[in-house]
Amino acid sequence: MIVPSHPEHRGHEREFVRRLAGQLQISSPLGLPFGDDMAGVPGQPRLAWTTDVLLDGVHFQSDRHAWAAIGRKAMAVNLSDCAAMAARPIGALCAVTAAPGMSMQDLIDLEAAMHKMGMTHDCPILGGNTSSWNNPAVIAVTVLAELPDGPPLLRSNARSGDSIWVSGPLGGSILGRHLWFEPRVCEAQNIHRRLPVTAMMDISDGLAIDLSRIMEASGCGALLDRDLLERAIHPDARQLAIQDLRTPLEHALYDGEDFELLIALAPEASADIAHSLGLLKLGHLTPNAGELLLQDGQRVSSVPVRGWEHLK
Amino acid sequence: MIVPSHPEHRGHEREFVRRLAGQLQISSPLGLPFGDDMAGVPGQPRLAWTTDVLLDGVHFQSDRHAWAAIGRKAMAVNLSDCAAMAARPIGALCAVTAAPGMSMQDLIDLEAAMHKMGMTHDCPILGGNTSSWNNPAVIAVTVLAELPDGPPLLRSNARSGDSIWVSGPLGGSILGRHLWFEPRVCEAQNIHRRLPVTAMMDISDGLAIDLSRIMEASGCGALLDRDLLERAIHPDARQLAIQDLRTPLEHALYDGEDFELLIALAPEASADIAHSLGLLKLGHLTPNAGELLLQDGQRVSSVPVRGWEHLK
Repeated sequence: MIVPSHPEHRGHEREFVRRLAGQLQISSPLGLPFGDDMAGVPGQPRLAWTTDVLLDGVHFQSDRHAWAAIGRKAMAVNLSDCAAMAARPIGALCAVTAAPGMSMQDLIDLEAAMHKMGMTHDCPILGGNTSSWNNPAVIAVTVLAELPDGPPLLRSNARSGDSIWVSGPLGGSILGRHLWFEPRVCEAQNIHRRLPVTAMMDISDGLAIDLSRIMEASGCGALLDRDLLERAIHPDARQLAIQDLRTPLEHALYDGEDFELLIALAPEASADIAHSLGLLKLGHLTPNAGELLLQDGQRVSSVPVRGWEHLK
Repeated sequence: MIVPSHPEHRGHEREFVRRLAGQLQISSPLGLPFGDDMAGVPGQPRLAWTTDVLLDGVHFQSDRHAWAAIGRKAMAVNLSDCAAMAARPIGALCAVTAAPGMSMQDLIDLEAAMHKMGMTHDCPILGGNTSSWNNPAVIAVTVLAELPDGPPLLRSNARSGDSIWVSGPLGGSILGRHLWFEPRVCEAQNIHRRLPVTAMMDISDGLAIDLSRIMEASGCGALLDRDLLERAIHPDARQLAIQDLRTPLEHALYDGEDFELLIALAPEASADIAHSLGLLKLGHLTPNAGELLLQDGQRVSSVPVRGWEHLK
């Protein structure tokens, strides 16, 4: 899911999705409720799919980013949605709308980068279309994937007492990782195979807001540990904090487009296995629905839930 | 497939698709070559999918068309791709990028129309995303479908001697049918079940150019019969001919967005069955690769292959 970026439309996505979901009673028998990272397919319980549209000036900036980087990201954000469900990508459709001034070479660079990123995860481009217009470029990618055995990894299955983990350090992705991140496709499958995952998603809008989505879907609160969170701050967040008025911790909590996995593990999960898979613990879920807290030694403070968006 | 609309990019799609196809050796073992109306899915021989992006100012005009009409078309063009393969739609993902000034009601009208058109063909919306930006609206729809039993209905399987048919009269769609056409989903499945179809596609860019694609893929030429063609001219083409300098025949040959099926039938096909299914015969395929001819009594003339595009 991509959050509306034009101020006039903020808040519309949630309402839009809510109304859609109301109409789509079909989605519940699929096991994949509307609003999770991938959608289900009727009659195909092992398949799921996702689509993301990347807009020039919103999700990338063609005057600053190479088309190869843009193509890589366009495929990677969809693969990250697959990772969120521990799904194995099968293939992609890519629809490119070219802007005036884009050359044939730009299109080829874009496509080659999508292709290369896809093939890294066994996800060939199987078709699509190209068109063009007198406006900024648009890249729409759809990925079909195979779900792992067992119940799907929804946002709604987490429970109070579950521990909260991330697949890598957070914050400051705007320094480059928002383009060059590695979608955690293989990691997600290993995590799902070896640990009692109760909920999983990828962090696209920021830890605080994405964690609040698991909290909301699962009817829980969360308590993050300041010391643990400190160890999950990416060096880019510290770098960025030098340049602006935010703290590294704020960057870790609120920066978007980390594309790391946010994972809830059942209480019986082995911390050793989690650590061996590179996971970083952040805290645990609580019974206080909607309450996101930060524990710093004896002091407990409330964490405002908000995201901030890149490239604007 | 949607043809590039910006003059700078004309001709790029073919080259782009050719290069993509070169990289995608994977597509051949699937049975569905790159460039047909739908793409295959590795490991899922009965599934196919298609994606189309509709652009405000290119494929629709939001200042003239209601969002309900636009949403209907966005879903219908994808269902028409399913019809081209005689495939049974399973479900859709819809990604909407809103323009400034679009209201929540506009989004709901758009989505409700996509949903309604989809449900007419058992194709529920299963997910998607919404975003927005400071540019014209973009609607990206992807549809997954089940292929019929037997070999897929490719453009490349037609042979010299096959007869050429359409599922309905052609030309003048810009008077309204380009928005309000009925995707031939059920008709296509009936045609495939009851007739020896050798190639099929939907007419999106115009009879002449789309027929030339079957000719090229199958290594054939075609001879259209003037009298037969006359009976396949839509009243809208005659209406339009009154207003402009083209003849009704030219409109039938060159107008885009008819979204009728273009069908090649093996010589043993029963004309009675074809007629009973509402098909209109136009002529037959010849051994002269690439040669598109029109027979008018004793006179045979060459038909230039070109398309012309709507809404520009």
